[in-house]
Amino acid sequence: MRCRKCGQRAAINMRHHRLSLCSTHFKEWLIDQTQRFIEKYQMFTPSDRLLVAVSGGKDSLSLWDILWRLGYQTVGLYIDLGINGGIHYSARSRQCALQFAEERGLELDIYDLRSEIGRDLPDLADENRRGKEKPCSTCGLVKRYVMNRSAMKQGYDALVTAHNLDDEAAILLANTLDWSLEHLSRGLPVMPAGAGFAKKVKPFCRISERESAAYSILRGIEYMEDECPYSAGSKQLFFKHHLNEWEDEMPGVKLRFYKNYLKAMEAGAFPARQDSAEILSLQQCGVCGQPTTADGLCVFCRMTARK
Amino acid sequence: MRCRKCGQRAAINMRHHRLSLCSTHFKEWLIDQTQRFIEKYQMFTPSDRLLVAVSGGKDSLSLWDILWRLGYQTVGLYIDLGINGGIHYSARSRQCALQFAEERGLELDIYDLRSEIGRDLPDLADENRRGKEKPCSTCGLVKRYVMNRSAMKQGYDALVTAHNLDDEAAILLANTLDWSLEHLSRGLPVMPAGAGFAKKVKPFCRISERESAAYSILRGIEYMEDECPYSAGSKQLFFKHHLNEWEDEMPGVKLRFYKNYLKAMEAGAFPARQDSAEILSLQQCGVCGQPTTADGLCVFCRMTARK
Repeated sequence: MRCRKCGQRAAINMRHHRLSLCSTHFKEWLIDQTQRFIEKYQMFTPSDRLLVAVSGGKDSLSLWDILWRLGYQTVGLYIDLGINGGIHYSARSRQCALQFAEERGLELDIYDLRSEIGRDLPDLADENRRGKEKPCSTCGLVKRYVMNRSAMKQGYDALVTAHNLDDEAAILLANTLDWSLEHLSRGLPVMPAGAGFAKKVKPFCRISERESAAYSILRGIEYMEDECPYSAGSKQLFFKHHLNEWEDEMPGVKLRFYKNYLKAMEAGAFPARQDSAEILSLQQCGVCGQPTTADGLCVFCRMTARK
Repeated sequence: MRCRKCGQRAAINMRHHRLSLCSTHFKEWLIDQTQRFIEKYQMFTPSDRLLVAVSGGKDSLSLWDILWRLGYQTVGLYIDLGINGGIHYSARSRQCALQFAEERGLELDIYDLRSEIGRDLPDLADENRRGKEKPCSTCGLVKRYVMNRSAMKQGYDALVTAHNLDDEAAILLANTLDWSLEHLSRGLPVMPAGAGFAKKVKPFCRISERESAAYSILRGIEYMEDECPYSAGSKQLFFKHHLNEWEDEMPGVKLRFYKNYLKAMEAGAFPARQDSAEILSLQQCGVCGQPTTADGLCVFCRMTARK
């Protein structure tokens, strides 16, 4: 395989794009693609201040690197959940994020769950979950809460997450099995600000996991390679596995699935949910001021107060 | 495992219904379920004359048997496509359908493609397909055409097909990957009559393949067990295989997928396509009078005239 641009030995062959590129041209290409999607979906402009959610993994560090090279104004946000489970998961991820920011002279905010509320995510999940449930739903709740609050408090123009095509396709597939109109109407690359929620954008929504991994490797970014110790057996991994099997059989199916979904949304497949009862009945949490459907305290404040 | 109704040894355990039944109670249950869905989706009543598409396989013979036992007025339609491929596929299927009808004193219409147009499906597909394409799309076209024309010509109140839950879920999954609004808006248990099309109904849409197979075995129906020789490697089998893997992991997922889709349709997903440009521009074929989007001849008449 040869690079289509220069004829040198290719570093990556992207079957679904019918495109092979060498290391230099692949890195250039991925930066261009990311910029293209930022513009196409009107995510943000160079004058915007962006809060980038950084986990220390390949996706968020590759994305942050690209946004930095493109000249965007970014600050990183690392949420230390205290998940260590024998492999020092959070400690090592945090170290990758810190080192990355330091090497580039970028600012990284750290939210440390234990310092803030007195316990780690596994403790919190133990208090909340019934039976053998995984801590993933508590984790998602905490991360969404902290990301939104940080973006709102400090007046960022957008909250950037590094969800890639594989993530988006797997979530979409899971939501499609349930035909949850509420969830299906929210799978877009941009969710506008409103009702106490920051604008949320996903510049990597059409970049595959494999492409973002290749970028971080070819760029020499040191990232946390291990998966979260709780992710084994998760529904998301299950759907990713099946989508990978489909991709082998029908190259491009993941991208087609996601792009056609976006087209269907544009064509009015799911009548907009902006005016749904849930949004209209939002209130402010009495403690933190964040939006909540509950009376009085939001779920996060109730959960973290309880002890 | 014991039958929930009588405590005898169960003949089948349906995990997704959390229900085990003996042979007698399972047969009773499947008949009741079928009647329930006929009523729920307002498919037809005892005064309607029904044309039942019969392939000679487990689904169509089980369904026909149940409709007969429920006292509906049915005539079967067998389409002999002349697919023999070493295993005498069409000849043996036809024999199963004939024997079934004879044993019950039911009327079976036979449409023999070779007698009607002078060649078999494999010939027709060879003339039409480009490269290595499977004959499945030509076959689907011929069957839809013949079924509709037969139902319209003889004034039947509804055309009944034995699509089961596995079929419907696999088609739905394939259409969802493409997010084809046109196709997604047509996956309902009942498609009303109109614009030259007969009313189409699927009383087995919520009955799994395994349940319909169990019914035909426990009832002693002799059906064609082989799959069509062209089906190997088909996309539909591919999606069925994956849905079966999901069903093992999450019992009930197929039924949930299909039922939630129906709910979403009711809630206004995929705004009705009845007034789509395609439907509005339908014309009558100059030869057979069937509806067509083409000027002059319909696809079937063009295809079968060409030689």
